[in-house]
Amino acid sequence: MESLKIRPKVQEIIDEFLNEQKPILDGVSPAAGQMVEFAQEFLSGGKRLRAAFCYWGYKAAGGTSEKEILRAASALEFLQGCALVHDDVMDASDTRRGKPSIHKRFESLHDEGSFAGSKELFGVGGAVLLGDLMLSWADQMLLTSGFEAESLKRGKDLYDLMRTELMAGQYLDLHNQAKRGGDVDEAFNVIRFKSAKYSIERPLQLGGKLAVEDDALNKTLSDFGLPLGEAFQLRDDLLGVFGDPEVTGKPAGDDLREGKRTVLIELAFKNASSSQRHELSNLFGKASLSLLEVDKLREVLEATGAQAEVEKLIEQLFERSNKALSESNITVEAKNALAELAIAATSRRL
Amino acid sequence: MESLKIRPKVQEIIDEFLNEQKPILDGVSPAAGQMVEFAQEFLSGGKRLRAAFCYWGYKAAGGTSEKEILRAASALEFLQGCALVHDDVMDASDTRRGKPSIHKRFESLHDEGSFAGSKELFGVGGAVLLGDLMLSWADQMLLTSGFEAESLKRGKDLYDLMRTELMAGQYLDLHNQAKRGGDVDEAFNVIRFKSAKYSIERPLQLGGKLAVEDDALNKTLSDFGLPLGEAFQLRDDLLGVFGDPEVTGKPAGDDLREGKRTVLIELAFKNASSSQRHELSNLFGKASLSLLEVDKLREVLEATGAQAEVEKLIEQLFERSNKALSESNITVEAKNALAELAIAATSRRL
Repeated sequence: MESLKIRPKVQEIIDEFLNEQKPILDGVSPAAGQMVEFAQEFLSGGKRLRAAFCYWGYKAAGGTSEKEILRAASALEFLQGCALVHDDVMDASDTRRGKPSIHKRFESLHDEGSFAGSKELFGVGGAVLLGDLMLSWADQMLLTSGFEAESLKRGKDLYDLMRTELMAGQYLDLHNQAKRGGDVDEAFNVIRFKSAKYSIERPLQLGGKLAVEDDALNKTLSDFGLPLGEAFQLRDDLLGVFGDPEVTGKPAGDDLREGKRTVLIELAFKNASSSQRHELSNLFGKASLSLLEVDKLREVLEATGAQAEVEKLIEQLFERSNKALSESNITVEAKNALAELAIAATSRRL
Repeated sequence: MESLKIRPKVQEIIDEFLNEQKPILDGVSPAAGQMVEFAQEFLSGGKRLRAAFCYWGYKAAGGTSEKEILRAASALEFLQGCALVHDDVMDASDTRRGKPSIHKRFESLHDEGSFAGSKELFGVGGAVLLGDLMLSWADQMLLTSGFEAESLKRGKDLYDLMRTELMAGQYLDLHNQAKRGGDVDEAFNVIRFKSAKYSIERPLQLGGKLAVEDDALNKTLSDFGLPLGEAFQLRDDLLGVFGDPEVTGKPAGDDLREGKRTVLIELAFKNASSSQRHELSNLFGKASLSLLEVDKLREVLEATGAQAEVEKLIEQLFERSNKALSESNITVEAKNALAELAIAATSRRL
């Protein structure tokens, strides 16, 4: 059972920041003020994984400025907000966490106001701009976190690298899917940049850099964070196919309909017999996949051994990550918290 | 005739920055390296207006760090790059400066590679991500411009405000168009935030803040820059309707087809006789507008006196701006350069 203390309380800080922004947007126009309300709604809840890893990376480095690190860590939730809002535009996904995605929310405004012109373009426009705002607010929060200039400089350099890797990784994902996948290595490359580094390794290192310049620590956080991040994304991919829609907030089989070229899928293609390959090719990426066909695909993923192989990979990566953590000489408090977070990030129920 | 020296040479600095980024993206995947090439192409040429105003705002404040201000000013070209790339996605505009817009460039990659899935979604995805990268690179450049921490802090605060105003202003534009316009005041509010502040007033002030904390100077730059920015956008709106497609790089009448609720249009609706209003209502915002109908609309805009009124507004705003500049006590060199830039930004041929 996860202790209550390991997830930093970022909601209050996010709300406070948004309340500071509200008058600026209202000053432009009450219509623009609506954007802050959508942001507030969107940034309520969520797993706060990135903020938590950033916070504990800082603690692992011996940092003691509580208020400052909480604000800096919260900035990552804005970056993640941008990534999700723009991702839903790029995928044309209508739901997020079981609720309408942001472009759908703007479409509803268009309906309610009986607006002129294309409802879809209005939705895309609103979502692109709200994502841009969240991306801007993220570095604004980081740089007004109250750390001294030298810490901010170190942190911002790492943050810049993280952002570039994230966007390049997202493009690689898009590209890989469009070219109908490649092989297991390429699928691993996508999850490394789009998710593993961005979700765990870099947030940890950002926290570390805000506390101290220490190459050995930076490497330790990578040795722990990168395999953990890979395990985290592999778990997410499994949940996307086998998970309960009630828990994932996404309709069953959506990843299969979308044709996401995950490690799981690449392994299935690689291991498939010719009849299994035939079934995979016929069903995978089919937009109109029925629930029966989703079940059939799941069976193939099991029968090819791909599912079991991914479970095994998760276990190995988790072990490697865990070993790096045990052998590190960070504080016991940080070690315990990170061990708990590692379980939360890779366990079956997340 | 514009002197050669008033536009800072930013191309070299932009290219240098992109060359630094290239290995990071290539390291993710050669496919991702493509994004840098598109950015390089997109950021070649352009009027460099924002960079120029930032540079001369700095000079007006007595700044002397040439290398640092050139890099900081160049950052604004990345912000503008994001605004344009995302704007073309939001408008579904297929051309920019007479060439295919960025989402169209990504669509071509999709064609060339015989990729799977929706070509349009791939185009939107690539363009959203490239815009996100440019938005990220903008603050990265600003903060690595080499100014000392205190100058950067002042500059970044102004930059944060500018970004938020820009995105709120763009949303207001979208919203205003969707609700079929409002009145002249609302149209003015849109150009103030979406363009006047963002294109001229704030870049000037950013330059000023990077040099010095000086409230009086900050006000002077606003007194000069805000009316000039409004005149600049009014000129742009006139060019959008009456300009030569060879010069504007946009098909004749595109703003009219799109239904852009400019000050020009709001004045025409306000002044129109009932038969003129009938014609306006019938033709304005019609996506399939023929060149003959574009001409008919132009005639109405002239006959209602709206065109002349906008010309007059430009003149008045220019005069107000010019007076503020003359009465200011900034250096003669900066005064002369800004006077030249003011003419370039509002003259009929731009």
